[in-house]
Amino acid sequence: MPNNFCQRLGLTTPIILAPMAGGPGTPELAAAVSNAGGLGFLGINYLAPRQIEEAINRTRQLTEKIFGVNLFAPESSRPLAGDLDSAKAFLAPFHDQLGIAPPELPEHSGENFEQQLDVVLSLRVPVVSFTMGIPHAEKLKAARTYLIGTATTVEEAQRIERAGFDAVVAQGSEAGAHRGTFAVKEEFALIGTMALTPQVADAVSIPVIASGGIMDGRGIVAALALGAQAVQLGTAFLCCGEAGTSPEYRQALLDAREDQTTLTRGFSGRLARGVRNEFIDRAEATDLEPLPFPWQNALTRPMRQAARVAERAGLQSLWAGQGLRMLRKQTAAELMARLKDEIEAGKQRLSTMV
Amino acid sequence: MPNNFCQRLGLTTPIILAPMAGGPGTPELAAAVSNAGGLGFLGINYLAPRQIEEAINRTRQLTEKIFGVNLFAPESSRPLAGDLDSAKAFLAPFHDQLGIAPPELPEHSGENFEQQLDVVLSLRVPVVSFTMGIPHAEKLKAARTYLIGTATTVEEAQRIERAGFDAVVAQGSEAGAHRGTFAVKEEFALIGTMALTPQVADAVSIPVIASGGIMDGRGIVAALALGAQAVQLGTAFLCCGEAGTSPEYRQALLDAREDQTTLTRGFSGRLARGVRNEFIDRAEATDLEPLPFPWQNALTRPMRQAARVAERAGLQSLWAGQGLRMLRKQTAAELMARLKDEIEAGKQRLSTMV
Repeated sequence: MPNNFCQRLGLTTPIILAPMAGGPGTPELAAAVSNAGGLGFLGINYLAPRQIEEAINRTRQLTEKIFGVNLFAPESSRPLAGDLDSAKAFLAPFHDQLGIAPPELPEHSGENFEQQLDVVLSLRVPVVSFTMGIPHAEKLKAARTYLIGTATTVEEAQRIERAGFDAVVAQGSEAGAHRGTFAVKEEFALIGTMALTPQVADAVSIPVIASGGIMDGRGIVAALALGAQAVQLGTAFLCCGEAGTSPEYRQALLDAREDQTTLTRGFSGRLARGVRNEFIDRAEATDLEPLPFPWQNALTRPMRQAARVAERAGLQSLWAGQGLRMLRKQTAAELMARLKDEIEAGKQRLSTMV
Repeated sequence: MPNNFCQRLGLTTPIILAPMAGGPGTPELAAAVSNAGGLGFLGINYLAPRQIEEAINRTRQLTEKIFGVNLFAPESSRPLAGDLDSAKAFLAPFHDQLGIAPPELPEHSGENFEQQLDVVLSLRVPVVSFTMGIPHAEKLKAARTYLIGTATTVEEAQRIERAGFDAVVAQGSEAGAHRGTFAVKEEFALIGTMALTPQVADAVSIPVIASGGIMDGRGIVAALALGAQAVQLGTAFLCCGEAGTSPEYRQALLDAREDQTTLTRGFSGRLARGVRNEFIDRAEATDLEPLPFPWQNALTRPMRQAARVAERAGLQSLWAGQGLRMLRKQTAAELMARLKDEIEAGKQRLSTMV
């Protein structure tokens, strides 16, 4: 049974590091996964062009292997709308507690997709993935970039295939951080990985990458059984030494149970899964509608950054999937070796089962 | 690798028919699954003692093999509370449309757990499963009944093990019909099967049965890889000839996409997953709080029954999981044979994969 995805990209194991923008994802983590035969990824969405260049160059210093970068589709950005005054009033007490200036919305939300893409193109990054939409990718195609889309429903996967992408991530409802949904209301597209993966695999002919709740070799073998050619793991790497996860974020992950993550729009304006904390509880207790993405994200950024400096987990976005109890503290290199052993052991075990 | 669950119950395949109360589950369906070497189940929660006796006897006429029955734990029943007048006012127009008497709450919600259990005991049913709690089961244990609990979180599974149960169903968020949750708020316990199964398997030493989104051999092999010893399938059997699913319910299932199921309290007062339809949309459009379970269930029963007579899918509870697109129309005997072939093929395919 050939694995086109691994063959095409020269991987020796079907493990992709989920791109993690803003903190946990580092060049060190991406390089460790690539060096182990998987596909490392940088989440560069929140970075300025100069920072993107630095991150890519740093990763190239650490590995000669293939890796990819991820951007949010520009269609994920919505015009500023909603009740800015109320949004600021809600955040003001947190700013007070953290001793920072009152919340102010920057004139621009920060990201510039075309500039970011130009850096990616000029540095000839071989793999680019997108979430929250299907950008026009003619320049990338002309550069023979391997293009991966992200789907949370069968229809989204079909649209990604029709757009000429090379592979599709099927993002199950278990997954941590932002939902990649773009074709329906995010709340309608919370399909568990067990149900989503085979339905997507039946509907498209490009390789399917399963994500959501996969934490160890058991999950990887399960995803392959469901019809995926590879898996994308994010939460599993959050407590690795190479990750940029803050100490209090790590502790919150290790303390949390599988029923303590929740979906919230409070941090960014788009639905994302993280460990329930003070900020989420307070946001839920109000009837306040967050600003649209990426404006809410821009508005809460100073609070989140100051909370990190203050080592205060209650006001950080503690993105995480539902497989929390399976988290392991080790280096990414050790984890990758362990995952590969577990894949082999899992296959072996299955072959001898009733 | 011994499979204690299958060995203990004498099954030749690790497939359990999900107990389906009120319509789809029939003695014919249970017997077909048992005759094929799986474990058939009757969902007897809504049945009177006399009906339970009939269903069990009928199943025994159709199979000499082992099968089980399922009851809701008595703790799932809550005292009558809430705004009965508003609940009736909301239902009244539907009753008008169906040409039935205005909604009235019966004096009793219907079920009598102790009486139901007495029938099960007197007929020596060898396997009994419970959802929505852990009933005191000394009589069943004394009768050496094989006891299965239902968990939606790790803690619930641990409590089921401590209560002396023999096995536990891990019910993932993909699953159709009622959530079995009893230890936390139902909304907190929506863990996908991919994440829930291995975390439960790590936490208990009794056999784990995976459920939620499993529709074919791919899902079964995946669940076994995750650490389950067996799987429980409900939706997969809904379009079998032996099922009691109404024609319009079948059609709604075959027409629906994976993103068209939703969780609702509108029909019964407890959270349950079904295909979104007119009733659910209308219930969501009001801010009306349904009566607690089982009172809302008792109140909406006449509407649901009349809707079935009128062949009107929009007012029936169209319980279904998120694997809808994988539904197959064939007899349960054919489906069981196919699932067994797919399990073998899936294992074979995995063993030759990268």
